[in-house]
Amino acid sequence: MQIGVCYYPEQWPRSMWANDARRMAELGITHVRIAEFAWSRMEPRAGVHDWEWLDEAIETLAAQGLKLVLGTPTAAPPMWLIERHPEILPVRADGTRWNQGSRRHYDIASDIYRQECVRITEAMAQRYGKHPAVVAWQTDNELGCHETVPSYSPAALRRFRAWLQQRYGTVEALNTAWGNVFWSMEYPSFEQVGLPVLTPTDANPSHLLDFRRYMSDEVASFHREQADVLRRHAPHADVLHNFMGFFTTFDHYRFAADKAIDVATWDSYPIARTESIGLPDAQKARYARTAHPDVSAFDHDRYRGVGAGRFWVMEQQAGPVNWAAWNPVPAPGMVRLWAYEAFAHGAELVSYFRWRQCPYAQEQMHSGLNLPNDELSPGGKEVAQATREIAGTEALRSLAPTERAAVALVFDYETQWIFEIQRHGAGFDYQTLAFDYYSALREQGFDVDIVSRHADLSAYRLVVVPSLAVIDNAFVAQIERSDAHWVIGPRSGSKTTNFAIPDTLPPGALQRVLPFQVLEAESLRPTLAPAISIGEASGTAIHWREHVRPNDGARVDARFDDGWPALVSRGRVRYVAAWLTHGLHYAVLGDAARASGLVPQALPEGLRLARRGGLTFAFNFGDTRVQAPAPARAQFVLGEAALCTGDVCAWRDPH
Amino acid sequence: MQIGVCYYPEQWPRSMWANDARRMAELGITHVRIAEFAWSRMEPRAGVHDWEWLDEAIETLAAQGLKLVLGTPTAAPPMWLIERHPEILPVRADGTRWNQGSRRHYDIASDIYRQECVRITEAMAQRYGKHPAVVAWQTDNELGCHETVPSYSPAALRRFRAWLQQRYGTVEALNTAWGNVFWSMEYPSFEQVGLPVLTPTDANPSHLLDFRRYMSDEVASFHREQADVLRRHAPHADVLHNFMGFFTTFDHYRFAADKAIDVATWDSYPIARTESIGLPDAQKARYARTAHPDVSAFDHDRYRGVGAGRFWVMEQQAGPVNWAAWNPVPAPGMVRLWAYEAFAHGAELVSYFRWRQCPYAQEQMHSGLNLPNDELSPGGKEVAQATREIAGTEALRSLAPTERAAVALVFDYETQWIFEIQRHGAGFDYQTLAFDYYSALREQGFDVDIVSRHADLSAYRLVVVPSLAVIDNAFVAQIERSDAHWVIGPRSGSKTTNFAIPDTLPPGALQRVLPFQVLEAESLRPTLAPAISIGEASGTAIHWREHVRPNDGARVDARFDDGWPALVSRGRVRYVAAWLTHGLHYAVLGDAARASGLVPQALPEGLRLARRGGLTFAFNFGDTRVQAPAPARAQFVLGEAALCTGDVCAWRDPH
Amino acid sequence: MQIGVCYYPEQWPRSMWANDARRMAELGITHVRIAEFAWSRMEPRAGVHDWEWLDEAIETLAAQGLKLVLGTPTAAPPMWLIERHPEILPVRADGTRWNQGSRRHYDIASDIYRQECVRITEAMAQRYGKHPAVVAWQTDNELGCHETVPSYSPAALRRFRAWLQQRYGTVEALNTAWGNVFWSMEYPSFEQVGLPVLTPTDANPSHLLDFRRYMSDEVASFHREQADVLRRHAPHADVLHNFMGFFTTFDHYRFAADKAIDVATWDSYPIARTESIGLPDAQKARYARTAHPDVSAFDHDRYRGVGAGRFWVMEQQAGPVNWAAWNPVPAPGMVRLWAYEAFAHGAELVSYFRWRQCPYAQEQMHSGLNLPNDELSPGGKEVAQATREIAGTEALRSLAPTERAAVALVFDYETQWIFEIQRHGAGFDYQTLAFDYYSALREQGFDVDIVSRHADLSAYRLVVVPSLAVIDNAFVAQIERSDAHWVIGPRSGSKTTNFAIPDTLPPGALQRVLPFQVLEAESLRPTLAPAISIGEASGTAIHWREHVRPNDGARVDARFDDGWPALVSRGRVRYVAAWLTHGLHYAVLGDAARASGLVPQALPEGLRLARRGGLTFAFNFGDTRVQAPAPARAQFVLGEAALCTGDVCAWRDPH
Repeated sequence: MQIGVCYYPEQWPRSMWANDARRMAELGITHVRIAEFAWSRMEPRAGVHDWEWLDEAIETLAAQGLKLVLGTPTAAPPMWLIERHPEILPVRADGTRWNQGSRRHYDIASDIYRQECVRITEAMAQRYGKHPAVVAWQTDNELGCHETVPSYSPAALRRFRAWLQQRYGTVEALNTAWGNVFWSMEYPSFEQVGLPVLTPTDANPSHLLDFRRYMSDEVASFHREQADVLRRHAPHADVLHNFMGFFTTFDHYRFAADKAIDVATWDSYPIARTESIGLPDAQKARYARTAHPDVSAFDHDRYRGVGAGRFWVMEQQAGPVNWAAWNPVPAPGMVRLWAYEAFAHGAELVSYFRWRQCPYAQEQMHSGLNLPNDELSPGGKEVAQATREIAGTEALRSLAPTERAAVALVFDYETQWIFEIQRHGAGFDYQTLAFDYYSALREQGFDVDIVSRHADLSAYRLVVVPSLAVIDNAFVAQIERSDAHWVIGPRSGSKTTNFAIPDTLPPGALQRVLPFQVLEAESLRPTLAPAISIGEASGTAIHWREHVRPNDGARVDARFDDGWPALVSRGRVRYVAAWLTHGLHYAVLGDAARASGLVPQALPEGLRLARRGGLTFAFNFGDTRVQAPAPARAQFVLGEAALCTGDVCAWRDPH
Repeated sequence: MQIGVCYYPEQWPRSMWANDARRMAELGITHVRIAEFAWSRMEPRAGVHDWEWLDEAIETLAAQGLKLVLGTPTAAPPMWLIERHPEILPVRADGTRWNQGSRRHYDIASDIYRQECVRITEAMAQRYGKHPAVVAWQTDNELGCHETVPSYSPAALRRFRAWLQQRYGTVEALNTAWGNVFWSMEYPSFEQVGLPVLTPTDANPSHLLDFRRYMSDEVASFHREQADVLRRHAPHADVLHNFMGFFTTFDHYRFAADKAIDVATWDSYPIARTESIGLPDAQKARYARTAHPDVSAFDHDRYRGVGAGRFWVMEQQAGPVNWAAWNPVPAPGMVRLWAYEAFAHGAELVSYFRWRQCPYAQEQMHSGLNLPNDELSPGGKEVAQATREIAGTEALRSLAPTERAAVALVFDYETQWIFEIQRHGAGFDYQTLAFDYYSALREQGFDVDIVSRHADLSAYRLVVVPSLAVIDNAFVAQIERSDAHWVIGPRSGSKTTNFAIPDTLPPGALQRVLPFQVLEAESLRPTLAPAISIGEASGTAIHWREHVRPNDGARVDARFDDGWPALVSRGRVRYVAAWLTHGLHYAVLGDAARASGLVPQALPEGLRLARRGGLTFAFNFGDTRVQAPAPARAQFVLGEAALCTGDVCAWRDPH
Repeated sequence: MQIGVCYYPEQWPRSMWANDARRMAELGITHVRIAEFAWSRMEPRAGVHDWEWLDEAIETLAAQGLKLVLGTPTAAPPMWLIERHPEILPVRADGTRWNQGSRRHYDIASDIYRQECVRITEAMAQRYGKHPAVVAWQTDNELGCHETVPSYSPAALRRFRAWLQQRYGTVEALNTAWGNVFWSMEYPSFEQVGLPVLTPTDANPSHLLDFRRYMSDEVASFHREQADVLRRHAPHADVLHNFMGFFTTFDHYRFAADKAIDVATWDSYPIARTESIGLPDAQKARYARTAHPDVSAFDHDRYRGVGAGRFWVMEQQAGPVNWAAWNPVPAPGMVRLWAYEAFAHGAELVSYFRWRQCPYAQEQMHSGLNLPNDELSPGGKEVAQATREIAGTEALRSLAPTERAAVALVFDYETQWIFEIQRHGAGFDYQTLAFDYYSALREQGFDVDIVSRHADLSAYRLVVVPSLAVIDNAFVAQIERSDAHWVIGPRSGSKTTNFAIPDTLPPGALQRVLPFQVLEAESLRPTLAPAISIGEASGTAIHWREHVRPNDGARVDARFDDGWPALVSRGRVRYVAAWLTHGLHYAVLGDAARASGLVPQALPEGLRLARRGGLTFAFNFGDTRVQAPAPARAQFVLGEAALCTGDVCAWRDPH
């Protein structure tokens, strides 16, 4: 459990630096991230570098024993670069260009800009790559933020065509794969392929999907180009990027593949995230000051998987922020709780954003550990408490890494893209469905590994697949090889890799292990709600339902009141033929868990558990005092079982 | 009663064609529409035609005795054509161009594109115009769909100016007609006239109206150019176009004038239409799986009028579709019911869309009579039932055409445009008002002819005019000559043909037969609801109310609770001075019908009747079992009086 | 109390003019505004003037003793001018240009257009500047209407850079003032500064604020250029501009500075304004036919301040209008009431828009004093009643000017811009907050002066500052010098003039007189509502709350139920640390008024009082009959104490 902070020396007088560094160390901070966004100071004019200030900043921090994470500054190209190369400004869907004057104003497909990025990265890495205090490098910042992916530039078009040629070889193969005979969309050559934008009605979904795949690959290769430079010049440092929460624009598993990163880090703003995702308003209201209990955990578990076990929180909310529709002050205790929550889910480091609230420019309403007048903020005081606790508790200081969970949840970025391209019903959002499944598992006390469809799933007891648009033979083979119980959600196997309906109808290849077919599927307006009971739980389908025909060997475990099957199964494999209301998901997953030998716990509302290194952590996100379900004679290493709102405890089970 | 289907041989392997044709014939299908959208296969490269595949497809179908409707492929210009002439891409209101990659990506005002359309049409017609199996030709597909009318291209501007010069002769006449002295909008010459778009505030409504008239004429002449070619080469085939439901972008009466079509056909998607039009949400909820009981009938009756008695359904929904906000599966029976409903309203042919669901490209979630795996879909099975019933029932097989109804409803496209240009109150939509009147008539069991204001109205017993923005002397003469009772709705006579308020105030020339004046008019926020009772019906004005001064000879038949007249009349002519809640429209129309000697029937909710060829058909769109009001000893030729949801019956009255 | 009217002789046949003029005079009208928008008639072709018609119009009106207000026609550049100089069309945020065909289609930053405006103004002024009937000149019309400010043209960019250079001297000073080190936004020179638009995420708020300041100055200088010409040629006439209601795009105090205008005039459309501003829907519903009781008064009091005591209503609503989402007919009496309301608040002249409803072009649904058929409209009849009453009542005819009120409310345009740039919470709108404070004062019977932060505030008893984003030493000095009680609202002192958080934290310099600090601030989603009671009033915070730390000498007067202070004070200065629900604002202001020796009156809902020249006027905007609180033996000069909806009375208190 290590605490870090984000710091921008260039934003403060040099006279403050030494005191800042001293106070960081006193606060128990071990890591400091600096330098991203500072291109205009590292290179005030084209080719003219100024490292003197950064040298001093690094030495000042290192002198206090602080470890440094250096960011490449490529998320904010300086004004002089835009003036020299205005064509690196990104192009919007309507063909106009974004302007300078904020950040992320670059076209990720621009060869010119990529060369500039390699150049500045190399210059930084040459100077600081071997510095003993520099333990890690972050590329850019929050790639894809502000919807700057996709790019619709001429450069993107050129590279997209090349990507297609690479994928399909001939234009005839592409025409066949996409079904371009439909509406005479056949291309005579790759040179006629356009970007799937500004079409009078829907573009071909295959075209849209390939464009999303291409853009995802562009994001990965943009990072990779910088990572390669850093590996050369800083061979002993960790290379990383700071991802975002609930963010699916690119495939993070592909991004991280082939050691492109050493550790997955992400930026955690639980309250603003709760406000901005697609939760029911009642949930947003209930958790407005604590954040929804699963919203950070979902990404902790997801990025632990992306990082193959290693993850950090690179930016952690330290108080109210500036960017959601409404920005309340967190409930007392939450800034401390979020750190323990991250650690309990396996984080090595939690780094707060930011050391001191910046009184000017775009983020002046974003809090930090210090107020603009340099006194510790309320959040800063909570961090001080946490670092004292950790320093004083051996069991927290040296916590073992997270072990494999009994339950896996398969998350798939392409599925998100496929159902964004073809929602079919307003309100259908795959990630929201996955989150609902995840939440129903967490409410029953389970630790969950969130993993890619390509992960090795053989060791899990229960595998939950909220939906998986494309089910190929390799995935079916995983099911066949596995001893786990499987819960597979609606729309699974409904598409081929080319975005077509499988020849054998949905669920395609899944029929090998669970023989049924989807004859018709429907999206449901909010007033259309087929009812169903599963055990003691009653509810309805929402958003989506399928008319399923069970074939030989499939069993119908539950039916809607109009007779259509809701659950079909064979052996250890269950299929849910609709998006169900939350209580039904809870029941279905509880049943499957019991069948696989796991024991669900009925936790009080707002309470969550997480286990790591022999400790069980309990967190209270609810608005009433609750009792954590610690066994009798549990050894508490932090807090106690009675938890107020915002409180946390941790114990070791008795032997 | 004939059943057809839409088929795309180019989308399937040739090996499937013969079997498809055989199964169509077995299913009782008589007509097959093919070839629209297949330009890239008919002409893979500029000037290089490939007819071989289409020859084979036609012969394969004809060999089974199927009759063919050929579509010109001009709704989907192929990629090579766009590359040669990018200027045919349509221009949006903001000046940017739509892109290729879907369909309808052409500028209807482009001379170049029109020449290309004549060229490909002529090539097709030369080859197949005399083929004995080819009984009809469809031009393009759903002209105006996806809001591709209006066009804001340089070509449209050039042609609009010519159209204006033709209409006004001199620019002085135009300036006077439009009132351009207002805000110094006077044009020195036609060359300064622009398109009425991107103005900082409202453009001149006269300018907007003439632009809509011009665009409407462009759509008609686009069709006409192809129709002329087809007439030359296929003199014995019907020429037609497939119109859309609830679609008012162009004036269908002007389009159809001068024998431009032989039969009006339209594309009927009742469930998606119900979801997407401006109905109260409670109605959308109630009829989510059956469609609103009047939504198809409205267009059946409208297009029967457009086709001067002859109409087809060119595309009929065969199951769930893909394009509404939500797309539920229809209630069992509806796919069959919709066919009988169309026949009962006078259709000669009901052609389902489509033979087999296409598993790829944009419409993969659109059902057909067969699933993608080639088994009959649930809708396909209902069609099989219907064809068996028809084949087995002489009374259905040889049903006489629809006769003139006792009730006419005047529908006017220009009125729609005028009140779109100047809603004056959010939510005022003329077509919705007309539909509300229509529905109130249908709920009382009346058959209705929907007709143009230029139709001969002399033989009707009751004429309903929901609103008619411009009332000219010719229309008043119709009233004077008629023996019918007339119900005339709000805003009638409120404008001149130049989009000005009449000199004598609204209702303008109508004052000749019903002497009153509108002193002030108001649009009503939802909370402003002047109350009124008419007979036993109570309700309020919504959207719109007028402050009316009755002049000598006019009688006030009902008043709002604040004293303003709601109904004024003289003799057989009644005027409704507000948009009333539905129950009041029901009462007003019921009263007028009784006064004209007609007998309203109080039908159960969701039940509708339609009469054709001596038969009375009854349809149950409601969610409860109801009894059709067949007289004692009625001779049933289809079904029986007790109707479940989705069921239909037909009887002949006893002698 | 003088009544005027707006008239457009060019829109009517000359044969009507003499009769119009005679009927105006008979109706008691004294002033007529003409000629704005008539450029295409004054100059039909470039450089070719036609004054003959305008000469005749002026003489015809003057012959009836009518006084004339002439408008320059620059709000509607004629078509020939656009054709010669298309670059004067304004540029929108996305870089496209607005089109001709309505009005305000000019770029206010265009040097070319400004020269044209000076030229036509000079030509008009030379011809009519000395005419004895021409008593006033209006520049342009409703500057900034239709969101035509800001301009994003190349001309605006050029002038903005010059404005910045003037303000900052060096680009280094600008970079420091804006904090451009953040995100590498530093400019190498003024030539890289762009317009703050189309940035992928938020532009720098300092950049946005300076751009708004610049555009505000552009509006003022555009007027000033015409005013200078008019002063030269018409030295004895009043120069004015007609401002709008609830309009804050430019700083009206800066606009009016240095005698740029002689009298502030504004255009009052109370019902459409009530519909279109951010009131709760229940309020819009209640006052849909009378307008909210404070909506016109707010701007009467504001523009009386802008005009340094002199103000007119240049356009007064005379019946239903055409531009709101819904446009109801006003309740009987309101057209008369609004005139008395304006007079009671100090207006010298109330000029109705317009003489006769124009039956054609964009405003044909906008009523006037006459219907299009030339009979007096319902509103026109009410005006006739008012002019008779005034003519017959010496006390009304010769009413003394408004005296200084006991209560001042400080309104600040920059505060509006600052919190628009950085709302921080959806729904936070400064003007709405100011209006809520104003309304709470008016409901307690107080007359209010609305004044600039630069006004001399020393003579008031109570000064209310709903919010003032930037509090400088000069403003604190006003507080220190004053004997008044002060109520200062949330977010006051939260920013420096460069848009940064003050070094000492908010409320910055205000701490000198009221020592507390804002540690954290939060925006509140509607479900987050910290509760509080103040005296007998209960309610909650909405939109915004601050976590306040009182320092030595500050007293906490009220706390939220979670313990955070809601009201802090020292001596005569009170600070409200949240946006409170209306009843709480009412209580806070009532308490402060009592503390300052003023006596609040508990008025019936919908009743308002205003005092001028020894008379007290009472107005009933409510929907029930109420009794005005006239003292026993009050001398009524108009009406009586019992007031129906829409009625007014006025009395002199007994001695």
